[in-house]
Amino acid sequence: MSTFSFETDPTRYRHWKLTVEGETARLVMRVDEEGGLREGYVLKLNSYDLGVDIELADAVQRLRFEHPEVRVVVVTSGHERAFCAGANIPMLALSTHAWKVNFCKYTNETRLSIEDASARSGQRYLAAVNGPCAGGGYELALACDTIVLVDDGNSAVSLPEVPLLGVLPGTGGLTRVVDKRKVRRDRADVFCTLAEGIKGKRAVQWGLVDAVAPKSKFVQAVEEQVARLAKLPRPVERKGPGIKLPPLGVEEGEGKLRYRHVEVSVDAVRRVAEVTVLGPEGEQPATAEAIQAAGAEQWSLRAFRELDDAMLRLRFFWPEVGLVLLKTRGNGEAVWEADEGLHQHRGHWLANEILALQARVLRRLENSAKSFFAVIEPGSCFHGVLLELALLSDRVYMLNDPTKPVHVALSAANRGAMPMAHGLSRLQVRFAGDPARLEALLVRDGLLDTEAAEEAGLVTIAPDDLDWEDELRVAIEERVSLSPDALTGMEASLRFVGPENCDSKIFGRLSAWQNWIFQRPNAVGETGALSLYGKPTRPSFDYRRC
Amino acid sequence: MSTFSFETDPTRYRHWKLTVEGETARLVMRVDEEGGLREGYVLKLNSYDLGVDIELADAVQRLRFEHPEVRVVVVTSGHERAFCAGANIPMLALSTHAWKVNFCKYTNETRLSIEDASARSGQRYLAAVNGPCAGGGYELALACDTIVLVDDGNSAVSLPEVPLLGVLPGTGGLTRVVDKRKVRRDRADVFCTLAEGIKGKRAVQWGLVDAVAPKSKFVQAVEEQVARLAKLPRPVERKGPGIKLPPLGVEEGEGKLRYRHVEVSVDAVRRVAEVTVLGPEGEQPATAEAIQAAGAEQWSLRAFRELDDAMLRLRFFWPEVGLVLLKTRGNGEAVWEADEGLHQHRGHWLANEILALQARVLRRLENSAKSFFAVIEPGSCFHGVLLELALLSDRVYMLNDPTKPVHVALSAANRGAMPMAHGLSRLQVRFAGDPARLEALLVRDGLLDTEAAEEAGLVTIAPDDLDWEDELRVAIEERVSLSPDALTGMEASLRFVGPENCDSKIFGRLSAWQNWIFQRPNAVGETGALSLYGKPTRPSFDYRRC
Repeated sequence: MSTFSFETDPTRYRHWKLTVEGETARLVMRVDEEGGLREGYVLKLNSYDLGVDIELADAVQRLRFEHPEVRVVVVTSGHERAFCAGANIPMLALSTHAWKVNFCKYTNETRLSIEDASARSGQRYLAAVNGPCAGGGYELALACDTIVLVDDGNSAVSLPEVPLLGVLPGTGGLTRVVDKRKVRRDRADVFCTLAEGIKGKRAVQWGLVDAVAPKSKFVQAVEEQVARLAKLPRPVERKGPGIKLPPLGVEEGEGKLRYRHVEVSVDAVRRVAEVTVLGPEGEQPATAEAIQAAGAEQWSLRAFRELDDAMLRLRFFWPEVGLVLLKTRGNGEAVWEADEGLHQHRGHWLANEILALQARVLRRLENSAKSFFAVIEPGSCFHGVLLELALLSDRVYMLNDPTKPVHVALSAANRGAMPMAHGLSRLQVRFAGDPARLEALLVRDGLLDTEAAEEAGLVTIAPDDLDWEDELRVAIEERVSLSPDALTGMEASLRFVGPENCDSKIFGRLSAWQNWIFQRPNAVGETGALSLYGKPTRPSFDYRRC
Repeated sequence: MSTFSFETDPTRYRHWKLTVEGETARLVMRVDEEGGLREGYVLKLNSYDLGVDIELADAVQRLRFEHPEVRVVVVTSGHERAFCAGANIPMLALSTHAWKVNFCKYTNETRLSIEDASARSGQRYLAAVNGPCAGGGYELALACDTIVLVDDGNSAVSLPEVPLLGVLPGTGGLTRVVDKRKVRRDRADVFCTLAEGIKGKRAVQWGLVDAVAPKSKFVQAVEEQVARLAKLPRPVERKGPGIKLPPLGVEEGEGKLRYRHVEVSVDAVRRVAEVTVLGPEGEQPATAEAIQAAGAEQWSLRAFRELDDAMLRLRFFWPEVGLVLLKTRGNGEAVWEADEGLHQHRGHWLANEILALQARVLRRLENSAKSFFAVIEPGSCFHGVLLELALLSDRVYMLNDPTKPVHVALSAANRGAMPMAHGLSRLQVRFAGDPARLEALLVRDGLLDTEAAEEAGLVTIAPDDLDWEDELRVAIEERVSLSPDALTGMEASLRFVGPENCDSKIFGRLSAWQNWIFQRPNAVGETGALSLYGKPTRPSFDYRRC
């Protein structure tokens, strides 16, 4: 049973205050020291834990849907002594390895969602850094489009993880410093080993921030940047009214979650979860007006919000589940209609927003340390955006029985609208070695039965009715018997065929190194730097490099 | 003091036999079971340890320099029961974490050197897989251009690491299966979890090998591929005679290595090494004939072979050394002349070969788990290819004293001839955020004094004479006090700005995950799969995924 929820809303925030005034929103961080998600630590100096980040993720999401008119979001601090001190260290030191990894992954996804809001919706983020800004605090600023730092002789930006904690800045900091802000690599080296960080003009010269201003002119400097960002062109025109995102109202049972369109069933003994997405019913919105009118209740949005919530729960509440069977049930044509409606009107702000959310949710799945098998059976509806569930899976099983026909179909969703972290579509990745097959498939309309889908390269294994159950049972048993760590590394290496970019480097290169360091005695051993942080004893290291 | 050498030659091989006949070379693996580099394991079924791989690396290097006429290298097995069973598991189980990481890094570099021989010199590799080919054995085949597998009902290719050992194929296998051979990712998933591997026609259909042939037609099938590969165009014309690579004749002392052009001095207490590269003396080869005549004795080749050997010794024999101070001494103009001679005649096979070797050695440095500070003082010669030593360093210190002038200079070596693992030049990486500065620098000839170098963005810190010693001393002390693991992860994240390709993904994404797994109890704990391999007890896992 869950001990906390990934759902919240601004009326329930303990750590943030969100206000909207015209085209500008303000997101003020003032972390409640005693408001930690778990016992045993105090959230001093605007340091954060998962609970703080859940609110931030909620705010970023709501701003996109509920306030389409907002052009600029100012992120700043309401704490008198700090902008943000980063992830709470006592919380990390108390956490299991699995929690640390999952926590960093979630906070990384939140920061990527900020960049996604800027890139796909033109909702720009400005970090108004009005106090010391360390570690995860600076990483939050790095996720923003623009950083303005107060020049008060005290406030610096810093990544003190390496010198103080013996771990990496775990939320994309290293990658964003060199790959996003393109700080010269030797300067980045100095910066990332300098516990006290860098302030004032030098921070601008090195590209660590975009502007500095003395305290007396800070508000003005921020407003200048707001004005500049507000004038930037946006990918789509965004006019209100926004739509409210209602609570998902999940029903929880023993090993069960039931949402309106998503059902989760966990077999804890076998360490397998089934996630079934139900297709939409009835007519799907075909006009911009209908999309706007259907709002948060339309299947394309609601089902994916539910799937997102389900995936987060699987990560945090059922870590021992190693394999997720992805299933669908319902009317494939209705999925196709919903997709096509959105794509035809993707110039409408809400259609654009729903497509972006679907893409993010699919990336969250594929970035999870779980194996995925898609199970395509009669009654399923792996069409369009739901076919992406199969394409992101490590394997696709599809029944091959002429008496029980089953079909898949492409929609616009499969033709580039749901990019993976590195920017390629899942079909591009799948057919990296066979571009002719990709071209042929992309122009193909209509249903593909099992043989056609297999011939097209969409299916891994297509057993007949006689073998179906045994084949799946054996595959499932084998999968869950394997080393969970080896599977995580293997899947991370096989899923992301193709070139890497800043986003994918954060999860590939940077996170893998961080996970390694989070296991090393030099960080988490008795005399490790993370274990001893804040204590009088100095860490002692095994200095052998490897 | 070193316990083994990275230098060898074919007369001393214990595990390989190299024969050359016309344009075809044969490299036959027959590992001496009792010939392990260390005690405690038997190299059964053509399994390998570092000693076996040192011989392979030597053969690949010599074929390029000593046999330029060779167009195709056939790698095959002289063992009656196996092509190659991969890295020796008892050896891995006996090894420290640092050894495992360094071993995998070295074997990865060897496989990349095979691909480099093909790409830069047109010396193609054919894996004639005449028996079972598992794990590192298949990864060796994957590094070759073409794989022919015998179809004898028994011989399969396989990557059984995940199902049998709970670790990853550590030598690029996962990445090469999907990113080089572009095997469909769901098929790769099946293959990488199938202990027995895949054989026969299915191996061809899935793209795991290029051809299969029954035993009776295997020789013929291999010869057909040899003939095809021999006809492929080559980047440069390659005609003999080759040049012999003589032993380097290093002199070893307590914490000292002295080569002709490279000096190493290790301060084990401070955990710092100084590596000084001496510039060339006298006239440098300016014509193709002179390059050929100077052969292995020319500075450009000899100095970089020495530097390579020194770096390997630092990795394996001095793991506790965390910081390498890179220095140079000598005549910068002569470095420039040597560079320009090679570049003007880069269409000559030997010039091309020397440039390729210099590039590989520089990549070996930058891929080492050591920090590098370049120290540019009076008397140094950081010109051209030696300036790359500064550009690969994490920081560059350059004395700024008008009474003791010091200069750096570019040559053709800095303008794209020394690509990093991901294909960009170090100047492109350095100025990723400032292309205008890059353009201005690239067209700049002549010497840059400290102020000009700093202005150009080449220098991190330029203390004056008064501060020089203190500044360096403090920086060194600070660096070696930091967590070695955090530094490794930080440097891996800051050094490789820009897009990633197959090569860089192997060291970034794949190796980082492997290193993580090599620390996990599920692999190396008492009941871990790697620890228990070959023993009657089954491993037991902590199944929490993260």
